[in-house]
Amino acid sequence: MKAEIIGVGTELLLGQIANTNAQYLSEQLAEIGVNVYYHTVVGDNPERLASAIKLAETRADLLIFTGGLGPTKDDLTKEIIAERLQREMVTDEDSWKKIQEYFKKTGRYMTANNEKQAYVIKGATVLPNDHGMAPGMFAKEGDHYYMLLPGPPHEMKPMYRNYGRQEIIKQLEKVECIESRVLRFFNIGEAEIEDRLSDIIDAQTNPTVAPLAGDGEVTVRLTARSDNKDKAVVMLDDIEKQVQEKAGEYLYGYDDTSLMAELLKILEDREMTIAAAESLTGGLFQSEMTAVVGVSTMLLGGIVCYSNDAKIKLCNVKPETLEKHGAVSEQCAIELADNVRKSLNADIGISFTGAAGPDSLEGHPAGTVWIGMSFKEGQSKAVLVKLAGTRNGNRRRSVKMGCYYLLKELKK
Amino acid sequence: MKAEIIGVGTELLLGQIANTNAQYLSEQLAEIGVNVYYHTVVGDNPERLASAIKLAETRADLLIFTGGLGPTKDDLTKEIIAERLQREMVTDEDSWKKIQEYFKKTGRYMTANNEKQAYVIKGATVLPNDHGMAPGMFAKEGDHYYMLLPGPPHEMKPMYRNYGRQEIIKQLEKVECIESRVLRFFNIGEAEIEDRLSDIIDAQTNPTVAPLAGDGEVTVRLTARSDNKDKAVVMLDDIEKQVQEKAGEYLYGYDDTSLMAELLKILEDREMTIAAAESLTGGLFQSEMTAVVGVSTMLLGGIVCYSNDAKIKLCNVKPETLEKHGAVSEQCAIELADNVRKSLNADIGISFTGAAGPDSLEGHPAGTVWIGMSFKEGQSKAVLVKLAGTRNGNRRRSVKMGCYYLLKELKK
Repeated sequence: MKAEIIGVGTELLLGQIANTNAQYLSEQLAEIGVNVYYHTVVGDNPERLASAIKLAETRADLLIFTGGLGPTKDDLTKEIIAERLQREMVTDEDSWKKIQEYFKKTGRYMTANNEKQAYVIKGATVLPNDHGMAPGMFAKEGDHYYMLLPGPPHEMKPMYRNYGRQEIIKQLEKVECIESRVLRFFNIGEAEIEDRLSDIIDAQTNPTVAPLAGDGEVTVRLTARSDNKDKAVVMLDDIEKQVQEKAGEYLYGYDDTSLMAELLKILEDREMTIAAAESLTGGLFQSEMTAVVGVSTMLLGGIVCYSNDAKIKLCNVKPETLEKHGAVSEQCAIELADNVRKSLNADIGISFTGAAGPDSLEGHPAGTVWIGMSFKEGQSKAVLVKLAGTRNGNRRRSVKMGCYYLLKELKK
Repeated sequence: MKAEIIGVGTELLLGQIANTNAQYLSEQLAEIGVNVYYHTVVGDNPERLASAIKLAETRADLLIFTGGLGPTKDDLTKEIIAERLQREMVTDEDSWKKIQEYFKKTGRYMTANNEKQAYVIKGATVLPNDHGMAPGMFAKEGDHYYMLLPGPPHEMKPMYRNYGRQEIIKQLEKVECIESRVLRFFNIGEAEIEDRLSDIIDAQTNPTVAPLAGDGEVTVRLTARSDNKDKAVVMLDDIEKQVQEKAGEYLYGYDDTSLMAELLKILEDREMTIAAAESLTGGLFQSEMTAVVGVSTMLLGGIVCYSNDAKIKLCNVKPETLEKHGAVSEQCAIELADNVRKSLNADIGISFTGAAGPDSLEGHPAGTVWIGMSFKEGQSKAVLVKLAGTRNGNRRRSVKMGCYYLLKELKK
């Protein structure tokens, strides 16, 4: 099966946003063995959209559209496709109910054009939108398949992943079994992991072994094709063993997990509580932790001590510590972790203090970060981390480093 | 002049990278009044690239290619275009000298395929590459212009900006002046703003008025074309006045600003300090604030009081308040804001307490959020916000709402 991804929206042609949807879908389609030969972006213009559809039909079996499903007049993807398929539009009752509920709940005024969002192409399978109002669609006509997805990535991705993907898999002539597994590594660079795995990567055909770097982590995607699932899983186990032999000490988890999720898993298993004191991270550690549902039994809370004054007033750091060692110091990190833990009677205290950048702080270059750890049972300690990113890169990476070192301690 | 941007590279079709080059070039071309009607992405495949070129010639005057200028076998953009233009390839001596010097300097071994990078299409204007080895090109043939740029964004962008841009401007019949302005709105939906502005949008030709929704905000881009800048600015002022009359109460800023940036601007101007107490947002407000450089004179710090225990221990909320009114209450929000402000002797205290979701809390549905505000000079108050997003959508939106209401208070 050959696919073409068609992004619809004048905002793309004006350069207001990048077409990250095409990237996501390309990656997803590659995973299930669908070849993507073209991406097209076209504006909110009926004639040009219609001609892009006709063209794509000559070179692809599956046309995936993103964008143009919203309430406004220039959202016209489904109207133009309906015209092309010579089908009517009908109201999808579930979507319409959901839209009405949204406006009722938020107390906002619903304008008439919102009903337009509930219209779908007759005969199409409706793909529910769990993160927005406009439903997606999947339709077959002649030799072609048409999938319509919303433009905002936070709506599009879960819709594709939870509903769109299986509609395509159902249409694949020979339903091959494709199993994939993502191995997640931390504290090792992409070049180094590629170097360590180069023999395995070069010999790859099935399963494939694909490293990818992103935001301080490296993932290695293993993909096996077989005629049945059990065989594919055995193939994955086998290749994973080889990868583990080369770089296993940096592996921390699988698939959609994160360092934070792994940390929370351990805290939950052991029924442990945590408190945090954050200087350079400014609340980011706790904010990322509270992003997870059900964290309230683990995270008690903590403080943000961006100023030295706050370190003293909110976390009882001794003024002498700051005078003698400075805020960017092992001593300050340990005091912060100890004191925040004790103030909330938590099992674990963690602290972050350092120079986020762009400037140096107290003579320490940007990227110098102390992470303190305090335990109800066990010795407090602090680790020094040296980062070389931007201000916010350093802040994000400090949080990951905090999870990583805490995980290491807890797994000892 | 109409343009089409053609990204060449199988890595784009596999989703390994996003086509950010098309975004950059689109923005740049809009600035000089060149209309982009299509983006195309095609892989490193000679036949499909050739057919993409032929197609683009039917719908654009200017074809801009990114990628495929490197030394390896699958880099074939210039070869295919040379064939299409029926021109030879010749060695560009400057580029060839530069490549040889690079290898001499780094002491690296130069493989034979590196000379290929110095080949250019005969008769084309060479665009120097100040950040890499492959030169770019600009050629005219019949009614069409062809611009070839390298794929890596850090090479492509300066090449376009420093050399490519003026080649295009030289060809523009009448150098139009294009000015644009982005108006940023909050607390109003895209449908509602379009409804309010529909008369203006329908009458649009020049300036154009284009609403766009994203992450709880709506922007309206105004774009005016004229033969001189002053006239264009007057046209923008005029249309902005009309837009303001219809929806001015929701306007909070212009161009690349954000609610957080606007809040920080006011705090800086007035030399005011702030402290925060965060329950459902879990540190997100402070984390977003500390993402900005130089915030340390404004944000003193604060607490994350995810548990009721933390509200009492870290922020002195009275246990009676929690017993009588609950954590999701006006009273709790005000106590948190007052107490955190006082504990750090800040000018302003802000607090967030509510049900992020997915579950309800204390009988309040997910999305019920109280935002407390406390002022050294002035009456404390709390506002009730009802949100209908996901857990993290509600948390992010609460932070924006906090900035919005605080801005409103400070502007009074």
